[in-house]
Amino acid sequence: MDLDIELPLALGMLGGLFALVFAFYKSRWILSLDVENEKLRKIGGYVAKGAMAFLFREYKVLVPFVIGAATLLLLGNKGVLRWEAVTFAFGAICSAMSGFFGMKIATQANMRTTEAAAKSLNLALKVSFAGGSVMGMSVVGLALCGITGIMYATIHFFGRDPYNFDHQILPILSGFALGASCIALFARVGGGIYTKAADVGADLVGKVEAGIPEDDPRNPATIADNVGDNVGDVAGMGADLYESFVASVLGCMILGLAANTDDIIKLRLALLPLVLAAAGAVASAIGIQCVRVKEGGSPQGALNKGSLIASVLAALFSYPIFYGALKGHTFNDGANANQLFWCTVVGVSAGTLIGALTEYFTGTNKAPVNAIVKACETGAATTLITGMGVGMISTALPVITMGAAILLSYNLAGLFGVAIATVGLQLTLGIQLAVDAFGPVADNAGGLAEMAELPPHVRATTDKLDAVGNTTAAIGKGFAIGSAALTSVVLFAAFKEEVGIQSIEITDPKVLVGLLLGGMVPYLFSSMCMMSVGRAAFAMVEEVRRQFRTIPGLMQGTAEPDYGRCVDISTTAALKEMILPGLLAILSPATVGFLGGVQMLMGFLAGVTASGVALAIFMSNTGGAWDNAKKTIESGVGGGKGSDAHKASVVGDTVGDPFKDTAGPSLNILIKLMGVMSVVIAPMLKLFWGL
Amino acid sequence: MDLDIELPLALGMLGGLFALVFAFYKSRWILSLDVENEKLRKIGGYVAKGAMAFLFREYKVLVPFVIGAATLLLLGNKGVLRWEAVTFAFGAICSAMSGFFGMKIATQANMRTTEAAAKSLNLALKVSFAGGSVMGMSVVGLALCGITGIMYATIHFFGRDPYNFDHQILPILSGFALGASCIALFARVGGGIYTKAADVGADLVGKVEAGIPEDDPRNPATIADNVGDNVGDVAGMGADLYESFVASVLGCMILGLAANTDDIIKLRLALLPLVLAAAGAVASAIGIQCVRVKEGGSPQGALNKGSLIASVLAALFSYPIFYGALKGHTFNDGANANQLFWCTVVGVSAGTLIGALTEYFTGTNKAPVNAIVKACETGAATTLITGMGVGMISTALPVITMGAAILLSYNLAGLFGVAIATVGLQLTLGIQLAVDAFGPVADNAGGLAEMAELPPHVRATTDKLDAVGNTTAAIGKGFAIGSAALTSVVLFAAFKEEVGIQSIEITDPKVLVGLLLGGMVPYLFSSMCMMSVGRAAFAMVEEVRRQFRTIPGLMQGTAEPDYGRCVDISTTAALKEMILPGLLAILSPATVGFLGGVQMLMGFLAGVTASGVALAIFMSNTGGAWDNAKKTIESGVGGGKGSDAHKASVVGDTVGDPFKDTAGPSLNILIKLMGVMSVVIAPMLKLFWGL
Repeated sequence: MDLDIELPLALGMLGGLFALVFAFYKSRWILSLDVENEKLRKIGGYVAKGAMAFLFREYKVLVPFVIGAATLLLLGNKGVLRWEAVTFAFGAICSAMSGFFGMKIATQANMRTTEAAAKSLNLALKVSFAGGSVMGMSVVGLALCGITGIMYATIHFFGRDPYNFDHQILPILSGFALGASCIALFARVGGGIYTKAADVGADLVGKVEAGIPEDDPRNPATIADNVGDNVGDVAGMGADLYESFVASVLGCMILGLAANTDDIIKLRLALLPLVLAAAGAVASAIGIQCVRVKEGGSPQGALNKGSLIASVLAALFSYPIFYGALKGHTFNDGANANQLFWCTVVGVSAGTLIGALTEYFTGTNKAPVNAIVKACETGAATTLITGMGVGMISTALPVITMGAAILLSYNLAGLFGVAIATVGLQLTLGIQLAVDAFGPVADNAGGLAEMAELPPHVRATTDKLDAVGNTTAAIGKGFAIGSAALTSVVLFAAFKEEVGIQSIEITDPKVLVGLLLGGMVPYLFSSMCMMSVGRAAFAMVEEVRRQFRTIPGLMQGTAEPDYGRCVDISTTAALKEMILPGLLAILSPATVGFLGGVQMLMGFLAGVTASGVALAIFMSNTGGAWDNAKKTIESGVGGGKGSDAHKASVVGDTVGDPFKDTAGPSLNILIKLMGVMSVVIAPMLKLFWGL
Repeated sequence: MDLDIELPLALGMLGGLFALVFAFYKSRWILSLDVENEKLRKIGGYVAKGAMAFLFREYKVLVPFVIGAATLLLLGNKGVLRWEAVTFAFGAICSAMSGFFGMKIATQANMRTTEAAAKSLNLALKVSFAGGSVMGMSVVGLALCGITGIMYATIHFFGRDPYNFDHQILPILSGFALGASCIALFARVGGGIYTKAADVGADLVGKVEAGIPEDDPRNPATIADNVGDNVGDVAGMGADLYESFVASVLGCMILGLAANTDDIIKLRLALLPLVLAAAGAVASAIGIQCVRVKEGGSPQGALNKGSLIASVLAALFSYPIFYGALKGHTFNDGANANQLFWCTVVGVSAGTLIGALTEYFTGTNKAPVNAIVKACETGAATTLITGMGVGMISTALPVITMGAAILLSYNLAGLFGVAIATVGLQLTLGIQLAVDAFGPVADNAGGLAEMAELPPHVRATTDKLDAVGNTTAAIGKGFAIGSAALTSVVLFAAFKEEVGIQSIEITDPKVLVGLLLGGMVPYLFSSMCMMSVGRAAFAMVEEVRRQFRTIPGLMQGTAEPDYGRCVDISTTAALKEMILPGLLAILSPATVGFLGGVQMLMGFLAGVTASGVALAIFMSNTGGAWDNAKKTIESGVGGGKGSDAHKASVVGDTVGDPFKDTAGPSLNILIKLMGVMSVVIAPMLKLFWGL
């Protein structure tokens, strides 16, 4: 039995180390580039400093939380499960590190991309994409090393039988996932509030009231705005996908161990996701290396080619892995390697399709955004109504796609098949995240070009990359919500497995009450996020107005604004405002579980998923569509900049900001976090309710 | 056993006849009042004619639908269940009639209220409330007579054993509920689109562009606007609560018959809701008669007093009814008359509490609306963000109240207890609906006063009543969503009973897929409603602009606008646009049931409820809060009329219109309709899937 465990663990660990080394090599390359322009270096330094300052202050706020939660896990658990307290803290640290590495390099890549853009489009793409790659590969590497590290340690201490896995190793591992989830939630919510408070402040006062262009150095909030892009879009997204990855691997392990087959195959199934993820890391690295564009070529085409190569390779790698693990054995009523391979294909296809649907509903030059552009001509009210109509209708096809993926993979290989499809969807996370994170880097590079007053052709080059980044961001959001929905379904099944209840009857009134409550919580959570952005933005607006009013020579460009005050306001507000929604997300499953029982908690999870997935898609897509409607009008359609239609589109975009960058993506984490939390407290609930 | 059936049926029928006679007597009194002012009579006549014309054209559109659906029920069913086709048509006709009666009298009461307002506040209250009472009592009367009529006929043909009830009588009765639901859905959606298209058209062009006051006779859309209030708020709401009442009685009968006790008690439980409803009709009538206000008194106080008297009487009446039916017998593990009495109290209290919460979150001079008023000062975007934040947070307490009501009543008397709480919530429907419908009558009376150019004190009097009407409307909306949520839970349990499946496992992937799909459908449906309003309003805006442009002397008041064209545009648009959302609501449960199976349909219903209840509360309350924020600013706060804050609040109110008057209330029906539909197709699903 030894090789059955040693080999997958070793492969998983090697894959993780490979990813980390790859990220290290990429980051070395980026740092080796010089930043010659002094002004650029200075302003880029401000942004980097602001971003790191925020991250450190955020982590400082979270330290007492992590200690408190770890203490609760220590007190609430019995026996070896007390180790959950340690893995929880370890998960939190790993998640924080993945945000830290990604952002550290992203803020360095920003200014180097600006400098590269002065030379050629291709070099700029290379630098910005390398910045994204560091993020993507560190996330994968930290996840794999963290999980396999815990597995090695726990196997060493407790043993390697299915019993140990079921009652000791996987529960302790779930603490790791919970740590990652909690930090991810705070990072997403805090980063989302930060970036939108700064953005709204910069736009409303700078662009609308003072009438100066975006990223103009005279705007006091402009540094905060650029810092926000890093802490929200880079660090927030990294933590988000880190937790998605860890949670889906955990869920997959639990369902592998619960498969209907003999013990040795169960163990092999449980360890499969580690090997798959390692293969995915290699496939991602190859894909990343393939992203090259000839002079005058299309950056979008290069990114697509890299992603496609990675996906195809990952799928091809998966077949021998499945075959090697199962070697003709079957599980769950006859499923074998072939079925698992098709589950992977289902997962990859579902992710791609949801991404494409997101791009259709939010992309420029497509019917939905054009409908909003037309509505802008009749004012803000019709802009809002049409935008929300588009966002609501855009929920239909992605949800149907998710449903089809679940049914197909379940029919192929039972619940474990659904779990493999979920892991499959995230197999090439390394390159997906690189493609995703490249957007904010390019966006920031453009901001820096503006602030450092570089010649217009530099900004033109970064704008080209930024436009590509908007498309990839939309696709990435589709992937993120798709993986969140599938992960939550997997965790749902895993929770039932962990709590050991045979049957949860859907017409049990406790389940129904849980369902209603769960359906409501995403609204309460989103409300908190949006209100927080409102309050933080209000403080920012006041400060920017104050600076314009009281600093003489600011508008003439003879005096420098106080960037630091704005950075500080965003930071303080975000850290204060992230607490309440964070606690709601973390405490509500425990409250429902301990007050209402396991049945009510199951209904609650079901309600959160049913309502939260649709609400998240609605909010993200509505915001994205408004953003692109504004961009379309700014490109000259329907009256262009300064027209009434443009003003209406700015209102839409401003409302959409907390939709798409704060509440929407935070809901992704909420949905998964509740599932992870339930898995973690399952043993305590069993004790508490005497199950 | 005869008296066990004969007596409740006879009491139910008598209660229904009593309610109809009461409504007839009230309507005779209204019609006996003269309308002396000729201009008022003429304009009131336009509104009445427009409203009736819409209703007739709507019913004409629905005739082929009813015939088609009845044919499907005829072909899809076997044996005696084919009678469902007949009861379906009968239910549709009764629902149409309740809309017709209510609106016929409301449009007559409008102008008489205006005339009465010239004399005294009290007389105006009396007339407008009498108009609402006709609506309320006809709904109750038609529901009770319809249900008992079908029961008499089916018992006569099939027999009176529990077997007959279970396999013949109640399934056939469910056809009646489905007919009522379908018409209610079309009435709500069609009426909602009509009223908002006209409202937006009248506001955007008349008030904002041309700068003339609300209800100014120079505005071509003003008649359509007033017609809209009648077809949307009166006829739509009547049909809505009609179906809620019928569906909850049906669900209660099914769960009574499924109670765990001996056959005779089962039958008595099943017939209990009829007797309760009859007692509720009497209590409502007494409450209505108590609504009197002395000169200078408060209309709100009078309405509250009437409602309170009715509620207390209904609760008091219920105890001897429960006692008489059970006489010391018990069911569902020891529940007896006492427990059922407390279930009634739980239902009444929950309804009142949800109403009060709705009033808090949407009412003027309360913190939530004041927060929106403050946000209006920083522009449309912050108005929108804050408003939606308020609407989202307002979902929490009502849902928790619903959850508590379900748990309490279930613990008292099992699922039948939940059903009794649901019926209890609607026991005084007669007066609740009267209070609700009084608002639009008073609102219309004010519009007529303006259009007929009566002296300002008339409008001042109707404005006082209208303000009261806004509060009662908010409370009524709370009641409506509360009853919809509880009814859907009852129907959910009833469906499981009808389909005869022992256990529906919540982690079955089919259930999970149904859950995700169900969570999405309310968004798709709302999107269709909002887009429809957008398109219809666009056509209206174009037409009103055209008239202002091409009719010479219109602005000077020397030429009359072409009111008829605007009425026609609203009518045509509403009838065209209601089809698609209507079909989605009606066809989707059948599609899921026949393609995905009973498990997926159960998950689907659960998902629709979890997501739809929260979305409905969010949309209704957001819209209501924006409306009152605008009214607050118009009363002089934060800059008053014409200020930038006012403009921002108008944007909020315009976005809120389709939220609160089209999509939100239509969702109430959607949730219930899906449950009724599932109960109706349960026998076919059993055959189809061989259960």
